[in-house]
Amino acid sequence: MNFLEKKICEEGVILSPTVLKVDSFLNHQIDPLFMQQIGCEIANRYKTEKITKILTIESSGIAPAVFAGLELDVPVVFARKKKSLTLTDGLLTSKVYSFTKQVENEISAASKFLQAGERVLIIDDFLAHGEAALGLAELVNKAGAHICGFGIVIEKSFQDGRQKLIDKGYRVESIARISEMSPEGITFLKSEVLSS
Amino acid sequence: MNFLEKKICEEGVILSPTVLKVDSFLNHQIDPLFMQQIGCEIANRYKTEKITKILTIESSGIAPAVFAGLELDVPVVFARKKKSLTLTDGLLTSKVYSFTKQVENEISAASKFLQAGERVLIIDDFLAHGEAALGLAELVNKAGAHICGFGIVIEKSFQDGRQKLIDKGYRVESIARISEMSPEGITFLKSEVLSS
Repeated sequence: MNFLEKKICEEGVILSPTVLKVDSFLNHQIDPLFMQQIGCEIANRYKTEKITKILTIESSGIAPAVFAGLELDVPVVFARKKKSLTLTDGLLTSKVYSFTKQVENEISAASKFLQAGERVLIIDDFLAHGEAALGLAELVNKAGAHICGFGIVIEKSFQDGRQKLIDKGYRVESIARISEMSPEGITFLKSEVLSS
Repeated sequence: MNFLEKKICEEGVILSPTVLKVDSFLNHQIDPLFMQQIGCEIANRYKTEKITKILTIESSGIAPAVFAGLELDVPVVFARKKKSLTLTDGLLTSKVYSFTKQVENEISAASKFLQAGERVLIIDDFLAHGEAALGLAELVNKAGAHICGFGIVIEKSFQDGRQKLIDKGYRVESIARISEMSPEGITFLKSEVLSS
């Protein structure tokens, strides 16, 4: 098991066969040293890709993204789930359906921070049905920038998000890939970690 | 001028005498190296305080908080502005009025991550009227934990948030303290930066 798989087994709570709660280090409480390790691992996988910007989405993507950004020495933009009163001009937007919350949200990023010609790494905490990932990809495509790939902390490989991204020709790197969750435990697909 | 005051003068946009937009490095796009500098500065000011936990609020507080957390080697908890479906049990809550958005939000944190006996440093991006800061303080007080103080990135010293916190006996450390904003420029109160 890699360092993240070990942490998921130790601290993750399986709420159902499809819902995993990892609020002790990722989604509510953040373990900074551990997030730095995650960020560096994602950065290492894309270090030859000449990334110029990282795009993530509030809130749980921010911590792994800033550590990857520090390692790659590039700025991080976090897409917003709600419109801001002080951010009204020049917005890129896309619609994202949340299976967890069963609502459609509009996500947005300012076009001045995501421009044509940029080489973008998209980072998020989870990949499940791929809705958030595809929404973030749409923002990058609308900007005319290039998507170098996705850096995902935890992938639910038993859902179809990864395949949707692969079908569009995107590279997907996930630090932990869960093939099954049950009261008996969690099964992972092989995922080689380079940096630890 | 310290490193943050310089950055605010270079990149901040004054939208009105009370509204400053710093979305190029703090509120939408994040400059990771700069945020690390901010986080370390806040951490240094509290390094003798035996902090055991950092509390912030999504989303813009997360980046400075994780870097301060890394420096102090403590976990970071980010309070949520919306209730999560997978976080329903054991919630500490308080109400926060947003002058910018003119709505009252309930903010929350899981009680298991904020416990009696902890020594908490509260970090946020802005201090204006102090509503968010007082809401975060209420979460810590409800948990029976101790508030060691506040670490603020940008303080609008012409508003009354700082005084409200001081009146309650809290220590407030702000990296930049703005006394006035006008089309002619920004005036800062003296704020000594130790770490740079």
